Amino acid sequence: MNTTERVIVEQFPFWEKAIDIALPTIEADTFVFVGCGTSYYVAMSLAVAFNENGKRAIAVAGSEWALRHRSYLPDLTGAVVVGISRSGESTEVVQAVRESHKLGIRTLAITCEKDSSMARAADIVAFAPTHPDEGIVMSSSASLMLLMGLRMAGVTVEPAVVAGARATVAAMGEKAPAVAAGRHKFVVLGGGVYFGIASEGALKLQEMSISVSQPFHTMEYRHGPMSLADEDMLAVMLYSEDQPAEEAKLVAELRAKGVKVIGLGGPGDLSLPIATRGLQRSLEMLAAMQILGERIANAKNIDSTQPRHLSKVVVLG
Amino acid sequence: MNTTERVIVEQFPFWEKAIDIALPTIEADTFVFVGCGTSYYVAMSLAVAFNENGKRAIAVAGSEWALRHRSYLPDLTGAVVVGISRSGESTEVVQAVRESHKLGIRTLAITCEKDSSMARAADIVAFAPTHPDEGIVMSSSASLMLLMGLRMAGVTVEPAVVAGARATVAAMGEKAPAVAAGRHKFVVLGGGVYFGIASEGALKLQEMSISVSQPFHTMEYRHGPMSLADEDMLAVMLYSEDQPAEEAKLVAELRAKGVKVIGLGGPGDLSLPIATRGLQRSLEMLAAMQILGERIANAKNIDSTQPRHLSKVVVLG
Repeated sequence: MNTTERVIVEQFPFWEKAIDIALPTIEADTFVFVGCGTSYYVAMSLAVAFNENGKRAIAVAGSEWALRHRSYLPDLTGAVVVGISRSGESTEVVQAVRESHKLGIRTLAITCEKDSSMARAADIVAFAPTHPDEGIVMSSSASLMLLMGLRMAGVTVEPAVVAGARATVAAMGEKAPAVAAGRHKFVVLGGGVYFGIASEGALKLQEMSISVSQPFHTMEYRHGPMSLADEDMLAVMLYSEDQPAEEAKLVAELRAKGVKVIGLGGPGDLSLPIATRGLQRSLEMLAAMQILGERIANAKNIDSTQPRHLSKVVVLG
Repeated sequence: MNTTERVIVEQFPFWEKAIDIALPTIEADTFVFVGCGTSYYVAMSLAVAFNENGKRAIAVAGSEWALRHRSYLPDLTGAVVVGISRSGESTEVVQAVRESHKLGIRTLAITCEKDSSMARAADIVAFAPTHPDEGIVMSSSASLMLLMGLRMAGVTVEPAVVAGARATVAAMGEKAPAVAAGRHKFVVLGGGVYFGIASEGALKLQEMSISVSQPFHTMEYRHGPMSLADEDMLAVMLYSEDQPAEEAKLVAELRAKGVKVIGLGGPGDLSLPIATRGLQRSLEMLAAMQILGERIANAKNIDSTQPRHLSKVVVLG
């Protein structure tokens, strides 16, 4: 077991602490969640979670908000910008928070590093420490920032989600290699709060195993991307609670084209149950996607602790 | 020259007409642009164009709005839903418009078929006829719906954009094959209004040439996806007007990793100038991406008039 895998399976005690820590409360006319890479995908899921709890929200890539906020929100009145960054040092997110501050917008930082440039620049900080051995590939920190954000949206994160995620990670880790064997193209499908998780899951596969991987809104898959479905593909379906039957129909179509499917919360060549209910299911799915990335890397003999071309923090000169 | 290519190069007289047709004017607190596949990517670019012109807007995939609008907009007061569909028959977009109507939201249809289910369900219709020979792969219709939407955002589409796009399509068609030769992985990068074009460009490559293709917000590319950059990759950079120097730096990084780059509006292994200025540049880039898809298909001996697994309209039973 390398460090990447060890951090994935050892992240749960950190979740247990984050379920109970005090978090700031903040009101806004519009919440703008801003992050880069993994943190942008966490931002996407949090924007949905906030909207579903009656708090208007959008997610914007860090570089986009820093450079051209008017492309995403013409009237900044009453906006709160929420920067998401594990290290608090990602250049574009720090810029986005500082730029927002200059524009007179209140800012909140969600981070795993209390003493960071982003945390210092923000008006308010939500903080949970991540596993000290976490490397370049984000795992525990992504889960913790999602967990904090869900709680701030008003979602109750129950202790049961920890046991659920632990079991799902164990089952995925054990059973995924057989269904993924010999597959080289990856697709992850999810709608609503799960689209951010699908995007992050695809990024995990991509950066950990150097495989081309794509996320799609579930029902968008028929509108073009379906052209690549074949016996070289592994798809992961993140089943929703509001239209699992429609999603199972799409999975059946994919399997008829030779695609192998892992169903998280519904049918597939491998079907893994999701123990919890509501928006916190996204936490369980996120952790499961992390171990899947590691297993695909294992199968390709790729060392996920040293992903090609990447560094732990993207700091631009 | 097959029908796909013929429609791409023959689309410009339809643009010339659409520059002058009467279009409805409509005010809203929030515009919600809704589409599937290509039309969703047009929706993304239009949402940016509207925001940049002071009209608050979001883009939502058709299936997502139809099923779970609260995940994207908790308060529907003052919203206008804009359905985008070439045929006006895409099941999820028709559902999205009908569902919005039931919720008491005003609806607008942007389409190339005046007598369609979506147009009949909508309160207001913006319509331009597309090339009669257009097949499964959307080209002329995507440009026309983008053009109508840009005009409704308040963008003046100048006749010069037609000549510009015609020249860019000709240059791309002639020069792309040499730079793309032997490349099997494709990435398209664009920010702001160009992210929708990058997404549509990647879809064109994917469905026309059955190649894995990915879009990213330009500066997001360093945050993970960069791990796949190598001598098997062709990247297309859709240069912005507000940070071309930063983008050229990223292009230099990619080229140092063996990636071949087509620069639309800036440096690359192939650099194609963009003649026009402002938001209408997106039209020129869109048309250029269409012919690139055809050229990659030509190189792989794939018939783009019959894309695998796809049909002209996705109608769900």
